[in-house]
Amino acid sequence: MDQDKTMGMRRGTNLPRMGDFNQSVILEAIRRAPAGLSRIELADATGLSAQTVTNITRRLLDDELIAEAGRAINGPGKPRVILRLVAESRYSIGVHLDPAVITLVLLDLSGAVVRRRVMRTPAKEPQLIVQTMAQAIEKLIAESGVDREAIAGVGVAAPGPLDAAKGTVIDPPKLDGWHRVPLRAALSEATGFGVTLEKDTTAAAVGELWTGQGPPEESFLFVYLGTGIGAALVRAGDPIRGSSRNFGEVGHIIVDPDGPSCACGARGCVEVVCTPQAIVEQAERAGVFAEGDPAGVEERFTLLCERAAEGGDAALAVLRRCAGHLTVLVAALANVLDVDRVVLGGPFWSRLEPVYLREIPDALHARSATRAVHTLPVDGTVVGDDVGAVGAACVVLDSVLTPRAADLYLED
Amino acid sequence: MDQDKTMGMRRGTNLPRMGDFNQSVILEAIRRAPAGLSRIELADATGLSAQTVTNITRRLLDDELIAEAGRAINGPGKPRVILRLVAESRYSIGVHLDPAVITLVLLDLSGAVVRRRVMRTPAKEPQLIVQTMAQAIEKLIAESGVDREAIAGVGVAAPGPLDAAKGTVIDPPKLDGWHRVPLRAALSEATGFGVTLEKDTTAAAVGELWTGQGPPEESFLFVYLGTGIGAALVRAGDPIRGSSRNFGEVGHIIVDPDGPSCACGARGCVEVVCTPQAIVEQAERAGVFAEGDPAGVEERFTLLCERAAEGGDAALAVLRRCAGHLTVLVAALANVLDVDRVVLGGPFWSRLEPVYLREIPDALHARSATRAVHTLPVDGTVVGDDVGAVGAACVVLDSVLTPRAADLYLED
Repeated sequence: MDQDKTMGMRRGTNLPRMGDFNQSVILEAIRRAPAGLSRIELADATGLSAQTVTNITRRLLDDELIAEAGRAINGPGKPRVILRLVAESRYSIGVHLDPAVITLVLLDLSGAVVRRRVMRTPAKEPQLIVQTMAQAIEKLIAESGVDREAIAGVGVAAPGPLDAAKGTVIDPPKLDGWHRVPLRAALSEATGFGVTLEKDTTAAAVGELWTGQGPPEESFLFVYLGTGIGAALVRAGDPIRGSSRNFGEVGHIIVDPDGPSCACGARGCVEVVCTPQAIVEQAERAGVFAEGDPAGVEERFTLLCERAAEGGDAALAVLRRCAGHLTVLVAALANVLDVDRVVLGGPFWSRLEPVYLREIPDALHARSATRAVHTLPVDGTVVGDDVGAVGAACVVLDSVLTPRAADLYLED
Repeated sequence: MDQDKTMGMRRGTNLPRMGDFNQSVILEAIRRAPAGLSRIELADATGLSAQTVTNITRRLLDDELIAEAGRAINGPGKPRVILRLVAESRYSIGVHLDPAVITLVLLDLSGAVVRRRVMRTPAKEPQLIVQTMAQAIEKLIAESGVDREAIAGVGVAAPGPLDAAKGTVIDPPKLDGWHRVPLRAALSEATGFGVTLEKDTTAAAVGELWTGQGPPEESFLFVYLGTGIGAALVRAGDPIRGSSRNFGEVGHIIVDPDGPSCACGARGCVEVVCTPQAIVEQAERAGVFAEGDPAGVEERFTLLCERAAEGGDAALAVLRRCAGHLTVLVAALANVLDVDRVVLGGPFWSRLEPVYLREIPDALHARSATRAVHTLPVDGTVVGDDVGAVGAACVVLDSVLTPRAADLYLED
């Protein structure tokens, strides 16, 4: 047979695939209803027949992923048994590798943080950092008292670009010696867990998706404010990862034609205008800092935000101008991607939030190509500064739990 | 029952949905194999059982969408019956509304152009333009001799932004009096056909997808060079349309910090640097034109490209600089979207192709955020200057024929 003729064609589906898919749909529906759902409500929510719902929930009860949790009386007829997620039936671990700190979280199946650890990123060679991470994971598990067997895996969020096929981090900024480090394999070997490597920006968006509880069909752009700036897109409940899982590299989009030169040859790129380091440099030129102020970027960034909050005119002017530049980026991305909503987050977000949420929404509306068709709400993340680590753990839960129509295709 | 609790949840699937989906998968596999496929090859390509393939192909034969077309002998055993698409079993019509010209095409089910008409866009009020379009559609059908009953519908490609829910064109550039024109309803009423309204850029990408015959899992960025510049994204065989079907508005991305001021308040936006009008203005400043040259933008644009092809230094320098600016845009989009490949096309593409395909690929590689992970090939469209109209017709065929996993979901 001529294999070339049929290579890469779309696959059909069959009954066992359909059964697995419907099981994920039921479990997701229960997970998304904190108060639980009855079997009749599940049939209504999913469109599945009462018989199918009964069969699937029996399997989920047997696996102890869900439990019966009381009865609800709704009008006449028999009281209905309410089914709830057993949050403590499965767990996952998220690790966020940042140039400055490593954050670790243990989540339960509901997405709640059970335990958290933060450590300075040691100034060591990659292999030793991986060992330190593995030890921190063991401590996290021991402290939580969770059964190791109940942990579905470890998700690692790292700065891009990544080589997803090889599980390597290519050249993370400010981590000397990190060139093509096989992080996934090394951490898997050191811990014995399956490890998923994800871009920090995509992980953060998955964290928002899981924690935010917005409608599953909603699309949103997540703009990640970390040591670098990145973007992620969620559409119909799925992050869009791109062909090499490197979606959202925005560092060289021009946002200020009058901005400083960039190593790429252009002027006023995101990287030299919108990052914490660039913002601190602008504050230095504006005379925000005095002798005796700390010299580190992180400390100066915090100080700048504090001075703006206290009403310092120079500090506030710097942050307002930076908000304007970030708006140029957000508008460019939102106009390309045509989303329902914009979410801002990442480790530096909470300090910027008071000024940025005042400045960005109106300026963005004025620049929106679709303002005649729909509004474009802007929100801060609901996850907080740990969104990278929480998101990395959610990536693991997501791959286990979320129904994907594409999973229906028969395998090659 | 508490409807709010379950609103917007993901839907399950069932047997009838699965059957429809598998039928689309089989038909797509046959469509994508111009030499036809045997039932055994179909089972192999789709992963479906021999019995399922036999049942589905029987239905498709009864509907005359496919036909038996001879026998193939492959090694020992019975010769296999080859099944081919009946290209003349269904047709669709595509209309591209451009400020200057209206292009109409009639495609058969294989995506081949059966008949084509081009007319100047009349300087009339919208309602009269719609009447002119409807008359042109009737002439196209009459000339082709195709049975009206075999036409699946009409696709219209128009400049964005669109209000897809209402089927209206909001404010197409250079079409005076076109404000919120209900194009979809008006053309449907005038012709009696179902009408699909699509952004010109998205339509062009669908045309490329159908005609290009690339692997279905490939993702590509389509950069559309028309009176305006736009972008579209195809991923796993589907165009990404955005939340209001307005994906790909790129006009105000900054590509030249030293460029002219833009009405948006910034400097060097795509709209004032990369459009045909902007390119002609740059050529005027560079002294490419002499007295006696025609004054219109379209004619001057053609003349500029001809002079560059003849080796005119000033003309070539203008186009090379413009290629550099377009590369900044393409790099920004490719780095955000992380695609396998870039395709350039649209009504102005063929004139730019000789210079742009020489200039852009290397410059893009240097700016690619994922150059350490994968190459980023750049190609011109395979569809030609009619890509908008062909694409609009393909949008209709695509909605009828292409299997979508999302179609498996049970309806609300």
